Amino acid sequence: MNVAIIGVGLIGGSMALALKEKGIAKKIIGVDNSAANLSKALDLSIIDEAMPLEDAIQKSEIIFVCIPVDATIDSVKKVLSLITDKQIVIDTGSTKFALCNEIKNHLMRKQFVATHPMWGTEYSGPGAAVKNAFAGRACVICNKEESSIEVLEVVENMYNAIGMHIIYMDALNHDVHAAYVSHISHITSFALANTVLEKEKEEDAIFEMAGGGFESTVRLAKSNSAMWAPIFMQNKENVLDVLNEHISQLRKFKASLEKENMEYLIELMENANRIK
Amino acid sequence: MNVAIIGVGLIGGSMALALKEKGIAKKIIGVDNSAANLSKALDLSIIDEAMPLEDAIQKSEIIFVCIPVDATIDSVKKVLSLITDKQIVIDTGSTKFALCNEIKNHLMRKQFVATHPMWGTEYSGPGAAVKNAFAGRACVICNKEESSIEVLEVVENMYNAIGMHIIYMDALNHDVHAAYVSHISHITSFALANTVLEKEKEEDAIFEMAGGGFESTVRLAKSNSAMWAPIFMQNKENVLDVLNEHISQLRKFKASLEKENMEYLIELMENANRIK
Repeated sequence: MNVAIIGVGLIGGSMALALKEKGIAKKIIGVDNSAANLSKALDLSIIDEAMPLEDAIQKSEIIFVCIPVDATIDSVKKVLSLITDKQIVIDTGSTKFALCNEIKNHLMRKQFVATHPMWGTEYSGPGAAVKNAFAGRACVICNKEESSIEVLEVVENMYNAIGMHIIYMDALNHDVHAAYVSHISHITSFALANTVLEKEKEEDAIFEMAGGGFESTVRLAKSNSAMWAPIFMQNKENVLDVLNEHISQLRKFKASLEKENMEYLIELMENANRIK
Repeated sequence: MNVAIIGVGLIGGSMALALKEKGIAKKIIGVDNSAANLSKALDLSIIDEAMPLEDAIQKSEIIFVCIPVDATIDSVKKVLSLITDKQIVIDTGSTKFALCNEIKNHLMRKQFVATHPMWGTEYSGPGAAVKNAFAGRACVICNKEESSIEVLEVVENMYNAIGMHIIYMDALNHDVHAAYVSHISHITSFALANTVLEKEKEEDAIFEMAGGGFESTVRLAKSNSAMWAPIFMQNKENVLDVLNEHISQLRKFKASLEKENMEYLIELMENANRIK
């Protein structure tokens, strides 16, 4: 089976490696706006061949769209307009509602599966692609009733084969949950980095002290703005809800310190300890 | 050389393992309010013997105080009142100003070194002790001019032997920096856990989706309140300063989303990308 990967970055590249390793894809065809990305993906043997979009679609049974979410909607529409009902289209974006809503009446909607493999790192581009990236992680499939049963089965089997377990969710709920378990983590990490960098202007030595705790909370602050800004913007309402809740949780810590209320402070911490 | 460890938890236990492994301590004597901790530390061969405080001090050349910072001040004072000028006392707490200030006129101050090895995990107790924990990390020594040169040399050599590099700082600056690179990371992690747990009341499925990014930002939320609440409280002024700055950084993200100001959002993220 030939698989086209549109966007050979962190996710597309890692997907290519996984599909190849599991013997699901005989040939991986890369499509990317960036010639440098394509050339790097070829060098790293992530893709077997680079082609323009139309050629890649014509030669592939499955087409993955793995590009920033602001470009995904137009790209998926275009791909759907170019396929036959023997081909399958999948996206891997971190937001789902706007996309599913935009294409819900498309004639080829049944050939499309909206997925969100729950994996990523703070790095980007084909050089960041990782072997065996998705094993043991969840993959969310949204609005499965809008895909044909046969198409869904192929996609589920493929995700299972690369080690993922499937969770079903409607796109609206997905975006709410993604705001809680992924998008807010990135915003707090970016904001934490900015908090410390604000101080760094005064004092360089601060980073010499940084230990493992700091590293882990600030790691995501290295994430790519071209990927994440469109996610936050597209999921604006949910992200703002969570951000407001988060600020109000931080204010509780603030209040407990200002009032030197040790009991309240411990209560807040012990509540947080319940996290799994 | 015999070394007494007062508080055989995460830090004290890991210190015991490191000192033993490097052949610095021939015998580790454990002191702890909790009989269960002592028994576990003996079972795990973290300590060689458990003793009451006075006996342990009498039999040790070096005494480490590795207990929550609210108990450290009284403990260090007591230990200093029981030693001779052939013995050395070290604390490993995460706050330094209150302690150094309280003991600065103590007759035995020169036998004491205020240290903060920059390592930890979200776990606690002797079962959480880790071999080779401190290697490659920084150890802050505060107000070194208040320790005798000979004592300082012994302590520096010991920390170097377990793989740490030394940073010198006055206690006041230490507490400011610790608020930025350690204390705030813990508060944001606790608050993030509470943010998500608030939502979990409505929906359990949320955790099925959680990926690596969420795990790393929320990891510290499992940290022990008995250890961390006194740190936040003792470093209240600095922690509040950083917390206010952090909330204002989060508000910038909020404003960029509310106004759909993509340029500003990207600017905030690219600024954060500068973090090392």
